[in-house]
Amino acid sequence: MDLTRIKDFFFHDEFARSCGIEIVDASEGYARTQVLIEPRHLNAGGGVQGGVLFTLADLAFAVATNSHGTLTVTTSANITFVHSVSSGLITAEAREVVDHRRLPFCEVRITAADGLLLAIFTASGYRKQGVELPL
Amino acid sequence: MDLTRIKDFFFHDEFARSCGIEIVDASEGYARTQVLIEPRHLNAGGGVQGGVLFTLADLAFAVATNSHGTLTVTTSANITFVHSVSSGLITAEAREVVDHRRLPFCEVRITAADGLLLAIFTASGYRKQGVELPL
Amino acid sequence: MDLTRIKDFFFHDEFARSCGIEIVDASEGYARTQVLIEPRHLNAGGGVQGGVLFTLADLAFAVATNSHGTLTVTTSANITFVHSVSSGLITAEAREVVDHRRLPFCEVRITAADGLLLAIFTASGYRKQGVELPL
Amino acid sequence: MDLTRIKDFFFHDEFARSCGIEIVDASEGYARTQVLIEPRHLNAGGGVQGGVLFTLADLAFAVATNSHGTLTVTTSANITFVHSVSSGLITAEAREVVDHRRLPFCEVRITAADGLLLAIFTASGYRKQGVELPL
Repeated sequence: MDLTRIKDFFFHDEFARSCGIEIVDASEGYARTQVLIEPRHLNAGGGVQGGVLFTLADLAFAVATNSHGTLTVTTSANITFVHSVSSGLITAEAREVVDHRRLPFCEVRITAADGLLLAIFTASGYRKQGVELPL
Repeated sequence: MDLTRIKDFFFHDEFARSCGIEIVDASEGYARTQVLIEPRHLNAGGGVQGGVLFTLADLAFAVATNSHGTLTVTTSANITFVHSVSSGLITAEAREVVDHRRLPFCEVRITAADGLLLAIFTASGYRKQGVELPL
Repeated sequence: MDLTRIKDFFFHDEFARSCGIEIVDASEGYARTQVLIEPRHLNAGGGVQGGVLFTLADLAFAVATNSHGTLTVTTSANITFVHSVSSGLITAEAREVVDHRRLPFCEVRITAADGLLLAIFTASGYRKQGVELPL
Repeated sequence: MDLTRIKDFFFHDEFARSCGIEIVDASEGYARTQVLIEPRHLNAGGGVQGGVLFTLADLAFAVATNSHGTLTVTTSANITFVHSVSSGLITAEAREVVDHRRLPFCEVRITAADGLLLAIFTASGYRKQGVELPL
C-alpha cells in the first residue's frame, strides 16, 4: 500500500476533511489520524464533542481496514469516553486485530498530545470481496 | 422541561451546529434531531459519513438524558449501520429506556425521510448528581 | 417455521440446556427464552451472573435470526445490565430489527417475572447464505 | 492484593464454578481465567457456546476490576466472536485499561491453547465507592 494513494482516496471523505481531520500515517492494517481542536469542535459543556472523536477514529478504522485494497465498510462500532479535553492535537491510532476475509475487527486508541487516553473505539467491518479500491 | 430552554443550552454545541444538526423536539426522556444531507456530509464512497449519523444520534441522546435537568455525559455508545444514503433529511429519535439516577441508558433510531432505518445507536450515560443544567 | 422443529434443533445447544434455559416461543424473526433462577446461577455478590443473562439472550437471538432457515451466527453482541435479581423466572424476548441477507441485527429485552427490565442485549449476526438449517 | 483471597471471594461465583471456569492468575488490574471445553459447553452447531466465552471473560473482568478492593460491577459489555473451536483449553486475559474511580474500563482477549484469537471482550464497570471487598 502507498500512503499517497490511500490519502488521495480518503481525501474524498468530505466530512472528515471539513472537520479538519487528517491521515498522518498508514500501512497494511494500520492508520493514524489527527485533528487540531478548534472552538467549532466543542460541545455545549465546552469539551470536544463525542462526534469529533468518533469521526477521527472511524476514518482511522476505514484507512486501516481498506489498506489491503478491498472495499471495507463499518458495520458496528463501540466508543467509550474516558477523559475530556477542550484543546490541543488529538490522535487516533487504529490497528486491525482481525484481518478476516469478510469480517475484520479493529481497535482504535484516541489520545491527547500528552498521551492521555481520551477514548477507546472498537469496530467490526464488512469486506466486500470483489470490490477493489483504486490504491 | 422547556423545549426553548434546552434548545438554547444545546445551541452551544458548536460541533453539532457547525454540522447543520438541529433539535426538532424534546420532552422528558425524549428527543428528536435532524440534519439535511449536503455534499460536505459524505464519505469517500459517496454515502453519509458514519460520524454524521453518530453526532446526530449523540445530540439526541444528550438532549433526552439531560432533559431531567441534571448534567449527563455519554460514557459508552454503540452504533450499528444498516443502510447508507447520500441525500435527504435524516432524523434521530432518542428514547431514554432506563432513567437511572447514575447510569441512564438510551436507544436512538436513525431514519431517512421515507422511514428507512439507517442506523441503531444505543448508549449509556453518567449522571452527575448535584450538577444542574440551567434549563 | 415450526416451533417444534426449531426447538428440536436448538435442543442440541448443550450449554443453554445445561443452564436450564428453555425456548418458550418462536416465530419468523422472533423468539422468547426463559430460565428459572437457582443458586447455581448466582455470582459472588449473590445476584444472577451476567453470563446467565447473556446466554439466555444469545439463545433468543439465535432462534430469532435462524428462524428463516439459513444458518446465522452471532458476530458481535452488546449487553447493558440495568437491575440485578437473585431469584424468579427471567425472560428474554428477541426481535429481529434488521432482516438483512448477510448482516441481521436483533434487539433482546431481558426482564424479571414482574416486568422489571434487567438487561438490554443487541447483536449483529452473519447469515451464511447456502447453509440451510434442517427446520 | 492476594491471589488466594480473591480466588476465595470469587469461588462463590456459583455460575462460573458450575461451568468449570477457574481463576488462574490475578494481580492489580489484571486477571486470567480458564476453562477446559467439554461437550456440555457446546452450542447446536457443535462449537463453544458464546455464553461460555462471555462468562469466562466476565469473570476475568470482575477479578481485574475488583482487584483494588472496591466492589465493581459490570455495566456494559461488548463481545466480538472471531473464531470458533469445539475442544481444548480456553483462556481469557483481562487488563484494566482505565482505572477510573467510578467508571473503569477493561479489555479481555479470549484465546485457544495454540494462541488463536477466539473473541474480544471489552466492558465498562461501576465502582461502588465505600463498598469494600473482604480481600
